[in-house]
Amino acid sequence: MSANTADASRPIAVFDSGIGGLTVVSALRRELPDEDIVYLGDTARVPYGGKSQATIERYSEEIASLLVAEGAKMVVVACNTASALALARLREVLTVPVEGVIEPGVEAALGATRSGHVAVIGTKATIGSAAYAGALQAARPGIRVTSMACPLLVPLVEEGLFDDAVTDAVLERYLAPIRAKDVDALVLGCTHYPLLSRAIARVAGPKITLVDSAANCARVVARHLDESGLRADSGKAGSLDISFTDTPDHFLDVVRGALGLEKGTVRVRQVPTLGQ
Amino acid sequence: MSANTADASRPIAVFDSGIGGLTVVSALRRELPDEDIVYLGDTARVPYGGKSQATIERYSEEIASLLVAEGAKMVVVACNTASALALARLREVLTVPVEGVIEPGVEAALGATRSGHVAVIGTKATIGSAAYAGALQAARPGIRVTSMACPLLVPLVEEGLFDDAVTDAVLERYLAPIRAKDVDALVLGCTHYPLLSRAIARVAGPKITLVDSAANCARVVARHLDESGLRADSGKAGSLDISFTDTPDHFLDVVRGALGLEKGTVRVRQVPTLGQ
Repeated sequence: MSANTADASRPIAVFDSGIGGLTVVSALRRELPDEDIVYLGDTARVPYGGKSQATIERYSEEIASLLVAEGAKMVVVACNTASALALARLREVLTVPVEGVIEPGVEAALGATRSGHVAVIGTKATIGSAAYAGALQAARPGIRVTSMACPLLVPLVEEGLFDDAVTDAVLERYLAPIRAKDVDALVLGCTHYPLLSRAIARVAGPKITLVDSAANCARVVARHLDESGLRADSGKAGSLDISFTDTPDHFLDVVRGALGLEKGTVRVRQVPTLGQ
Repeated sequence: MSANTADASRPIAVFDSGIGGLTVVSALRRELPDEDIVYLGDTARVPYGGKSQATIERYSEEIASLLVAEGAKMVVVACNTASALALARLREVLTVPVEGVIEPGVEAALGATRSGHVAVIGTKATIGSAAYAGALQAARPGIRVTSMACPLLVPLVEEGLFDDAVTDAVLERYLAPIRAKDVDALVLGCTHYPLLSRAIARVAGPKITLVDSAANCARVVARHLDESGLRADSGKAGSLDISFTDTPDHFLDVVRGALGLEKGTVRVRQVPTLGQ
């Protein structure tokens, strides 16, 4: 058995600040049904979107290091905020490949726009980092990018207000400046937002295509596993192991139902902290 | 110098899940101008309101133990969620007196109601704990209590939407069931809510008196210090030392301005975690 074969049987680790990253798990299950997946959502410290880069880097490193120590062959950062602010740090300190959701989202946005004007919505931290705008401009110089922090959307999603007058009123406010331009592709730059895609599409109007990085992230992960010989080929369905840093509430069932993920045991575990 | 005199010169520690607890600090400054106050806001893990009792107890114990080890003569839990879920635990493990905001809020509500029907609004964790309802009924058997979790109010406050159509629409939804009853006192059971008091009063209508526990908490703390001989009598203005577990954003300036708190140095520090 070569080293690569041994490596290939190890799980893919996916982490997120909370529950939203299960949208990426769902896409990975479809794209890579043979892979074992370990998911850890940091619900004890959620949300990351209003916190500083130093804190987001520390939390991301704590979680990813733990998952690698437990045998992950690759780390997928399902959280846009952590992808925007901690990916460089993770690639520096981890011994396995790390994939985030920003680069796949950028690729998908470039495939979707005709006008050359892309909008990005996300948390304060993600938008403040300019990670999407920078990556879009690096990939296609001259592209126009309109970015908008939408801090109220995560709480609205967590309240399950997917189709609601309050959510529509908040979206109207966030999306009006985007609708007023010639934007034709809108990146949903937060794992919570796909759960609002119907409302976002309604308020954004028919000229704007929504770009969700989850599906593209799964394709990028598959490509990476193939290129590095790390793809599992067991021929049997991969396992899914979900845990959180705090006891999950009913929102987990809402999300799991919406995504069609199997119901398994969900564990609660603590993450050792760094730097004390 | 007696032990009590030495004790009395030590600071009062105030902690909160974030910035909102500065409303309690502001009330303490007015009530107890000679006291040194040390404030620690856990912005790296904010909010507490949607988290489990085990996590809220752990965070509260970590922070309060640190402040006591650093010399606090008393701990004031400015956070309603931590007061509701962790006060018993803190009183068990700490060697100094601990005061929360629930009992002072209950006292104030009982003073305000004529109809004998009190409403309480707060986070999911606070309302789920039934701490207010239990304490109200223990203090005055037969009192009627209507409780309502209002999870969207904290994010709206943190966005600074104090007087805004979206906030009013959300408040309409939360307060309609309260307005439909003979409630005449409404406990603002979260330190963020006093910043919305104008909007809440507008939506609640003129028959309902708003009860804010901050001022009453300061009076209870003063009474406690007097009774135990722990009151500072330096004759000079007490110091105020503010720190957070994450870098503060512009919201700190908004709150400090609204409360008329002096601008001093604000530190960022980590809290050692327990139980790993």
